[in-house]
Amino acid sequence: MLIFDRRLSRHPSFARWSRRFPAAYAVTAGESLKDIGVFPKHVKAISRLAGPMASRRLTIVVAGGGSVGDFGGFVASVFKRGVRLVQVPTTWLAAIDSAHGGKNGLNVGGAKNQIGTIYPAAEIHVVRAFLETQGPERAREAAGEILKINLLKKIPSAKGDLWRSLPRVIAGKMSIVRRDPLEKSGVRHLLNFGHTMGHVFEAALSLPHGSAVGYGLVFAVAYSRAKGLCAAKDYEKIIADPLWSLFIPSRDYLDCLGLPPARVKGLLLKDKKRTAGDKLRFIFLKKPGQPVIREVGVDEILRELKRQKDLLRSVYG
Amino acid sequence: MLIFDRRLSRHPSFARWSRRFPAAYAVTAGESLKDIGVFPKHVKAISRLAGPMASRRLTIVVAGGGSVGDFGGFVASVFKRGVRLVQVPTTWLAAIDSAHGGKNGLNVGGAKNQIGTIYPAAEIHVVRAFLETQGPERAREAAGEILKINLLKKIPSAKGDLWRSLPRVIAGKMSIVRRDPLEKSGVRHLLNFGHTMGHVFEAALSLPHGSAVGYGLVFAVAYSRAKGLCAAKDYEKIIADPLWSLFIPSRDYLDCLGLPPARVKGLLLKDKKRTAGDKLRFIFLKKPGQPVIREVGVDEILRELKRQKDLLRSVYG
Repeated sequence: MLIFDRRLSRHPSFARWSRRFPAAYAVTAGESLKDIGVFPKHVKAISRLAGPMASRRLTIVVAGGGSVGDFGGFVASVFKRGVRLVQVPTTWLAAIDSAHGGKNGLNVGGAKNQIGTIYPAAEIHVVRAFLETQGPERAREAAGEILKINLLKKIPSAKGDLWRSLPRVIAGKMSIVRRDPLEKSGVRHLLNFGHTMGHVFEAALSLPHGSAVGYGLVFAVAYSRAKGLCAAKDYEKIIADPLWSLFIPSRDYLDCLGLPPARVKGLLLKDKKRTAGDKLRFIFLKKPGQPVIREVGVDEILRELKRQKDLLRSVYG
Repeated sequence: MLIFDRRLSRHPSFARWSRRFPAAYAVTAGESLKDIGVFPKHVKAISRLAGPMASRRLTIVVAGGGSVGDFGGFVASVFKRGVRLVQVPTTWLAAIDSAHGGKNGLNVGGAKNQIGTIYPAAEIHVVRAFLETQGPERAREAAGEILKINLLKKIPSAKGDLWRSLPRVIAGKMSIVRRDPLEKSGVRHLLNFGHTMGHVFEAALSLPHGSAVGYGLVFAVAYSRAKGLCAAKDYEKIIADPLWSLFIPSRDYLDCLGLPPARVKGLLLKDKKRTAGDKLRFIFLKKPGQPVIREVGVDEILRELKRQKDLLRSVYG
């Protein structure tokens, strides 16, 4: 059974391919697809479609971006207590990041991914023709997650096109996932690099996920430098990366830093990485390839936000 | 956080215990709790209750019978992508069977356990004081599952009380589960012994699960004898078991056999054990401790139903 983003049917190559499935279920991509409130309706429809198929022979193939992948991955993980899953990511962001590693999730009220499972796909097919159905602005959104993996794994940013950089970035992510597939040991937590503040910026300013992560990385690297964890010469090297220039210097990042502290605090306290009280596990970077996790208080993060804002304001005058 | 059957609060020993939890969520037991349609409402409430707790420190303790255990086990398996689960079964049927082995499930439309996971509890506490809050008629309902394990594992039926027979029956089930924890190899499929027709009888006649399984076992053993898989002397030994006398001879079993063949066929075709076309994997018994799985056609099962009905009618005149 195919579960797919209905917008893909516009593209003849996708439409042709999708007609080969004995059953197909079209969904509208976006966060509303991930709302737990609409999940019963979708499951009933999928259950009706799957009706005549024996569950042990059923494979769910999910074609779409992050929200469709999260939704379809969760469905496959719980339908008949788990059926075979194949992911076909059709956005750059999904092809680089979300389709790999098995995490899925649905939202409860406003809280993202409050329910979900870790259920790796049996196969992941990255299809150039499907990725190229996207406009070039979507490729820009992937830059944040690429930069994250490049910094964590010390991968030099590719000069070539996005398609050619995919294998190295995916391999970089999976080398971390494989050391902690079920997120038990804490190693996988490194993949949240840039995400603590990234999620705050995304929620408060309605930024695309990839851009918000980019600004979250800028924050984390500048914070690492301010704490003396990252040496000046390493910092200079990091910010010389061509991908870095997409995020800083920019007025958008100043908007991120200018968020009201009470709003930032409220969002940080909802963070899944919160440990006890007002503490969070925050990922710093000593140098490319050397991330380090430290527990920091929410108030310390707010002070760092103010420090960066004052500094950047002095630059912009 | 405690998720519990609200009827248990009547009992002072339970009420005292439940007050020790920082958060408690009362549910109304029964199949309606397992309906996917009400799942969003429950998850929102549970998410609100859990709000201030860090997910890595959260344990969900589930106290109740089969429906509460299925519901709470599923919630724990997907909440924040899985939190620690403790099961406290408070019915004999749950204490013997459903709390062990990690299967949970919710219903979609009329179809039972269409969604679910296999998520074993970190701990299972069987508490005599809680089990004894039940009336003696509930103990009778457990007889079907006990008989099933006794036949599969060649355990002689206990003379003593139900409490004393629990450890052997649970160990018998778990010795099968451990050989196939995720239901991949097919070994675990043996636990469906008596359930193919049991589920049909349960759905069509609204029988309690345990009783329906008892009649399903009667059907499967008589079927095994009719096919020559079970020798006459083994058959005589099986039906001499004191638990057997709860299910046959009885007029209730004649009601089971008298179901309209079209109704039986419709329900059998919905069976999760259906392989391809109109075939099912059916569990027969050569002798106690020697189950055997054979693929049989739905029409063959219907002929066997008629054969047993005609035979039993001749006995009852």
